[in-house]
Amino acid sequence: MFPIFSHFLLTTVPLWGGLFGIFYSAVEPLQYSEFRINGPRLVQRLERLAEFGSTPEGGVNRVAFSDQDILSRAYLRTLMERAGLDVRIDEAGNLIGRRPGLDPSLPVILCGSHSDTVPHGGKYDGALGVLAALECAQVLEENKILTRHPLEFIVFSDEEGGLIGSRAAAGELSSEALQIVSHSGKTIAQGIRDLGGDPDNLELARREPDKLKAFLEIHVEQGGVLEREKIDIGIVEGIVGINWWDVTIEGAANHAGTTPMNMRSDALLGAAHFILAVNSIVRAKPGGQVGTVGRIRAEPGAPNVIPGRVVLSLELRDLSADTIRDLFSEIRTSAQKIAQGTGTRFSFAPIDATAVPAPTHPHIRDLIESSARELGLSSLRMPSGAGHDAQEMARLAPMGMIFVPSKGGISHSPKEYTAPQDLINGANVLLQTLLKIDHSRF
Amino acid sequence: MFPIFSHFLLTTVPLWGGLFGIFYSAVEPLQYSEFRINGPRLVQRLERLAEFGSTPEGGVNRVAFSDQDILSRAYLRTLMERAGLDVRIDEAGNLIGRRPGLDPSLPVILCGSHSDTVPHGGKYDGALGVLAALECAQVLEENKILTRHPLEFIVFSDEEGGLIGSRAAAGELSSEALQIVSHSGKTIAQGIRDLGGDPDNLELARREPDKLKAFLEIHVEQGGVLEREKIDIGIVEGIVGINWWDVTIEGAANHAGTTPMNMRSDALLGAAHFILAVNSIVRAKPGGQVGTVGRIRAEPGAPNVIPGRVVLSLELRDLSADTIRDLFSEIRTSAQKIAQGTGTRFSFAPIDATAVPAPTHPHIRDLIESSARELGLSSLRMPSGAGHDAQEMARLAPMGMIFVPSKGGISHSPKEYTAPQDLINGANVLLQTLLKIDHSRF
Repeated sequence: MFPIFSHFLLTTVPLWGGLFGIFYSAVEPLQYSEFRINGPRLVQRLERLAEFGSTPEGGVNRVAFSDQDILSRAYLRTLMERAGLDVRIDEAGNLIGRRPGLDPSLPVILCGSHSDTVPHGGKYDGALGVLAALECAQVLEENKILTRHPLEFIVFSDEEGGLIGSRAAAGELSSEALQIVSHSGKTIAQGIRDLGGDPDNLELARREPDKLKAFLEIHVEQGGVLEREKIDIGIVEGIVGINWWDVTIEGAANHAGTTPMNMRSDALLGAAHFILAVNSIVRAKPGGQVGTVGRIRAEPGAPNVIPGRVVLSLELRDLSADTIRDLFSEIRTSAQKIAQGTGTRFSFAPIDATAVPAPTHPHIRDLIESSARELGLSSLRMPSGAGHDAQEMARLAPMGMIFVPSKGGISHSPKEYTAPQDLINGANVLLQTLLKIDHSRF
Repeated sequence: MFPIFSHFLLTTVPLWGGLFGIFYSAVEPLQYSEFRINGPRLVQRLERLAEFGSTPEGGVNRVAFSDQDILSRAYLRTLMERAGLDVRIDEAGNLIGRRPGLDPSLPVILCGSHSDTVPHGGKYDGALGVLAALECAQVLEENKILTRHPLEFIVFSDEEGGLIGSRAAAGELSSEALQIVSHSGKTIAQGIRDLGGDPDNLELARREPDKLKAFLEIHVEQGGVLEREKIDIGIVEGIVGINWWDVTIEGAANHAGTTPMNMRSDALLGAAHFILAVNSIVRAKPGGQVGTVGRIRAEPGAPNVIPGRVVLSLELRDLSADTIRDLFSEIRTSAQKIAQGTGTRFSFAPIDATAVPAPTHPHIRDLIESSARELGLSSLRMPSGAGHDAQEMARLAPMGMIFVPSKGGISHSPKEYTAPQDLINGANVLLQTLLKIDHSRF
């Protein structure tokens, strides 16, 4: 019954204001600071969600658009309905539960994450963000509290396949992307259709920036920093920009037996110098920037032939596009010196698959920090080195992200683990931050 | 007619000694130092041989057992017959032309090389050794000279596929090797059969050490040393031993975005340090030793994942097995330090495909040197970094090898090139050395 009533409320708040008091009360900061999510319920729901696609190793195999993905979303829909949310599925297959606010003219505060996993993934990546958001909805419902802003709780579609749902919401999903075959074996278009979306009218899923107050997401860290530093809460400064290059090193393939050491142009020797240079240049500066060579191919690739050509990948990530540009410039200069020293030639081809940095909103960072402090939790400002739906939402609205510790920094693995207390701490920070945003002007 | 007569001579020398003078004369050193091979004929025959399997790029595609290989051997057989040799094909498909000596109780001096090429190879690798040997036979025949020892001129079968003919002659060819499918598409057994051999009775191709005086081979250098140093003749000190290892470096695969630089166990970073260490350790000592990392694989091999595991090849070559052992020991010690510094683990698995060093006979080296000097040619002692049929023959008899310059050190390529004068110089050194061996006691 509530969904209908909420819709009624939503459109009639100015006229029927006096009536709210009967059923729902507006909440003041002094009151809401006492609210807590239901920890055991959150933990139990995470276990329940993990049953959809559970693997013998204790992980979860719930790739987007698979049967298990579809079934798990039906489960999440029931949780939304139980929290009194008005549920819909948008054209991109995003599952959205809405809660009216006191003032329907105010923009929506959006909160959520995704429920799909990588093949053979873990229980927490995405799932925490979805279920912690639904805990917030449930707590508000149980306390019969109305926020000032309308709230929407969202389960994005196919995050692991390339932020599909959130890209559509940001108006950034191309029709070409719809034809990509996902891990489920379906095209993304077919997958969206199977989730209840309408890929032929994807533009209708696009959110209007002026109708969004903020986006907030909680996620496991996926790095080992919080665990190592024994910090409860990570305040994400932004989602790093990512640049990729294919680096080609050319030397001269030659007989490994007959070519003396001093007559070689060994492309792999040049590559080895380059890999060390990338590492030392990236580490030479303070900051969270990272640089990785993850892929390498030596040609012809036989034990008895000096490599004549090596192709390797270079990835640089940082919160600042300027820093990435400066690092790359330094790396390229270093490569020129290596080329001279090893008799090789370097060339760099930028790869299209890059992401621009998505900073979080400074005000939301502060609200997360004060929420953590009030809950007696330690916090640390840090970049998110991984991509998230939040980075697409940052195109539309002020964005904030909360991290909780992740054991060993392991993610995308059955070994992914976050301790119950960390899950609960994070969800409480999410709830408090959500309520603070509701009362903030920015 | 000569083959029959020569056979007759061979078995009757003691009795019919006086008769030789009528047709053939024994030769004294003062005489034979004047003998020269027919340079234009050698060059023209190399061009003719290169027509079998000639490619548009100017190279030769005459893999063992192919139609062109079979046709070229028929051509070589006619050259043998024209040189008055008694021709046979042994069970391993080796084409052998024999010339009797004055004393049939003396062991045979064997001289030759191979006529097969790698796919899309060049005109000189193998071909020079075969045709220069046949020039020697032709010169002796034209001068009606009988050597003291019987001479045999040999075209080994399938050198490029793994020294097949010479391994069989050394009794080292396994029956498993016969089942390998060669570049021709035929098994080696079938290929040998198509050359006129009898793979079912391969043991009959085995040569007895006490019936061999020496083996002598001339070959293009396949390295760039002689050309660079402007030296006419390379005196091979031996064919290097080759040891291969698979080196595995284990780190921890991790998210390239979320794992800070100081929390990584990057297997590729360990590998890069290792590649540089191999290079510097091998170069730190004087000598001709070489060390190569030619193959590398990083896992999982994605631009956005820190490599958790790298497998690479290590190859060490030297004339001395002790030097190889010492270098490897030093490399392994260095790897342990790298492991500590990078948080990785190294393991080394020796690969079966190794060759023990095959030194040339010191006396033959001296004979090559004096032959070169007498011909007014410069010479340099050097290792052979590449494998040759000669290394198998070294198991049976004193072995010597002569190198001539190879442009740019390029081999196994249509670009393979040795200037006519270098070919002629080498063949003359071969002839003189052959005759000196005939008069030497060792």
